[in-house]
Amino acid sequence: MGLPLAQALAGAHSDVIAFDTDTARVEGLSAGMDRNEPEEGGFEVPASLSFTTEVSDLAAASVYIVTVPTPIDGDQRPDLRPLQAACGTIGGVISKGDLVIFESTVYPGVTEEVCGPLISEHSGLKAGTDFTLGYSPERINPGDTVHTFATMMKIVAGQDAQTLDRVAAIYDPVVPAGLHRATSIKVAEAAKVTENIQRDLNIALMNELALIFERIGVRTADVIDAAATKWNFQRFTPGLVGGHCIGVDPYYLISRAEALGYYPEVIRAARRLNSSMSQHVAQRAVQMLVHLGNGVAGRKVGVLGVTFKEDVTDFRNSQVPEIIRQLHDFGLAPVAHDPHADVDRFREEYGIELRSWEDLVGVDVLVLAVPHHAFLGRPRDELFALARRPGVIIDVRSALNPAEVPEGINYWSL
Amino acid sequence: MGLPLAQALAGAHSDVIAFDTDTARVEGLSAGMDRNEPEEGGFEVPASLSFTTEVSDLAAASVYIVTVPTPIDGDQRPDLRPLQAACGTIGGVISKGDLVIFESTVYPGVTEEVCGPLISEHSGLKAGTDFTLGYSPERINPGDTVHTFATMMKIVAGQDAQTLDRVAAIYDPVVPAGLHRATSIKVAEAAKVTENIQRDLNIALMNELALIFERIGVRTADVIDAAATKWNFQRFTPGLVGGHCIGVDPYYLISRAEALGYYPEVIRAARRLNSSMSQHVAQRAVQMLVHLGNGVAGRKVGVLGVTFKEDVTDFRNSQVPEIIRQLHDFGLAPVAHDPHADVDRFREEYGIELRSWEDLVGVDVLVLAVPHHAFLGRPRDELFALARRPGVIIDVRSALNPAEVPEGINYWSL
Repeated sequence: MGLPLAQALAGAHSDVIAFDTDTARVEGLSAGMDRNEPEEGGFEVPASLSFTTEVSDLAAASVYIVTVPTPIDGDQRPDLRPLQAACGTIGGVISKGDLVIFESTVYPGVTEEVCGPLISEHSGLKAGTDFTLGYSPERINPGDTVHTFATMMKIVAGQDAQTLDRVAAIYDPVVPAGLHRATSIKVAEAAKVTENIQRDLNIALMNELALIFERIGVRTADVIDAAATKWNFQRFTPGLVGGHCIGVDPYYLISRAEALGYYPEVIRAARRLNSSMSQHVAQRAVQMLVHLGNGVAGRKVGVLGVTFKEDVTDFRNSQVPEIIRQLHDFGLAPVAHDPHADVDRFREEYGIELRSWEDLVGVDVLVLAVPHHAFLGRPRDELFALARRPGVIIDVRSALNPAEVPEGINYWSL
Repeated sequence: MGLPLAQALAGAHSDVIAFDTDTARVEGLSAGMDRNEPEEGGFEVPASLSFTTEVSDLAAASVYIVTVPTPIDGDQRPDLRPLQAACGTIGGVISKGDLVIFESTVYPGVTEEVCGPLISEHSGLKAGTDFTLGYSPERINPGDTVHTFATMMKIVAGQDAQTLDRVAAIYDPVVPAGLHRATSIKVAEAAKVTENIQRDLNIALMNELALIFERIGVRTADVIDAAATKWNFQRFTPGLVGGHCIGVDPYYLISRAEALGYYPEVIRAARRLNSSMSQHVAQRAVQMLVHLGNGVAGRKVGVLGVTFKEDVTDFRNSQVPEIIRQLHDFGLAPVAHDPHADVDRFREEYGIELRSWEDLVGVDVLVLAVPHHAFLGRPRDELFALARRPGVIIDVRSALNPAEVPEGINYWSL
């Protein structure tokens, strides 16, 4: 999230310093290479933008913008360590009169009750007088070329009216879509988690409906097509929820709510259901395999796509590795392919070796887990040719037209 | 729902017979008077439309459209008795070659597995050969003058392709917005419950967020305003969910899912939370009253609006009577007013006597439960003048601007 922001800011501000602790990443970016987007080639680094790993380079800044990730730990509690580390770093270099803006997704209160005090502690300066706090949630949608930094309205907030003006002045020249001035930092923090929780919940509803409609014997995609003809129906589709936003942010608000004595049941129910969908997909694959009548043990299952959503390289919190693990547990031999995922980093993270498209030829079950354009753009014949006859296709996102599936292949979609 | 449909159909079809068992209602309608819309004056009855309570008048029809209500019983299970009664009636008059279309909201399967067999039983005719079944869910939005029968696309479905054509031919001339041909009757049945469940769930999320944000100390309306500046955020607001659709239809699908061995947790969590909001509002009113310091027992509470939503006369399944009951339980003296609700029918249904606007003068707590235009259209001074100083205003739907609330009145909104 930091890179597109720094690039945008450098278009209007004369001295933008992009700081990261990852030396390899900073070296690459300094040379105009973004390893997360290897297919896009390089980019030009303007004179107004510099990349650094040196904390001392930050001391010259008068405005700090923090875009570190806010993940969850193994117990699904907020892991504020990256944010705390950033506050420590800033606390070491901040000067009187400086402004610190946070863009990371947090629960309402983190900026003023956690970050402000930490910076004070490290700097000996006082939040609100010696330095001030702002918040402006990032809204970048990975893989989306329509809703980009420039075309999305941005929420800004400050701890007082003057600070809000100052925050707005930073973003105003680089956000042509305009700014929304939230009434407080907490309101802006709450708005961001609300956006993502709403998505999580609506996908959970479609997943729950898919489980029900499957039992009733109707195709969920047909139901959604019909319902979507109503003016106020919101088209969401069933599927796997992963990534570093939708599947993570709800836990931030849940944690805060529970600390305050309220136990969210709607938000929790959505999380629980969405988290169980990988299991459902794996189970369905096995059931359909059993019905082919040639046994289960050792059968080859092809998995297309392992990233957290289509057309991105990011596989953080993807549910596909969990599907692969479950298929293993059933004694199957899953083989996964993804043209966008970095093979080495995926092996490092999940211990799973990604394979080539050709390695998937002859699978008994083909799981189209992530409908990348790279898959859907191929002639359908090539896709269907991967599966044996009789065989099974598991179309997790209903990306295929069931009428096109050739004879001898049993089709299932969520 | 039947009246606007009959009126629309009479605009294109030469002989539309509108049947109801309620003699008073049919007499009124025959004279062009709709008792549910007393403020709109009368309407003209075209020559192509007749109203009747005589079953024998129906025998001449070749197409039957059923729009009876599908309520729930005291245990929140589907109450199919009105639908079953309609099937019995039709079974007594139906002829070979006739078509029966259902518009009532049901769980997927009711038309073909409950209604078809019932009509067969009463008529001795066979569904699918002697007569055929269609389904076209009603989408009328009470109180909405923008999204009317004519401007909304309509879903149509039939038990076979020929029947679907016949169903489409009935509606096509009277639905300029167009028809969506669902792939089956069950898909069309599922689409309708899906639409309403989505609304229930999204309102439940906003209610849950409101409960959390209240503890955190941010105004939910401000959060929603900020979040709504994102292109894909769906603006829903917290509030009471009542009426014969949103608060009822989910139970139809829940019941069917549970019969098939799946226990919906997302849909149920939403229902549970939305059902508890009347209690939360009453509790908050009492808490704020206590803080005024003049005691609770016998204090007068004014309740503005008792219908299930704004600008309608319908109070079926409204949550406001529950708020009034809870206020009574706390030993308060609630006084309710609603310019749209029929006083006699409200007393009959809930045992509560509606009062005039003037009777609300001098209340300690004013609960703006339903923000009718009739209330919001008055000068704000008149509204605020109802409450004593010190006093409390409970603005359930955040319909007021808190900045306009005069000194001496403590304001709370969901």
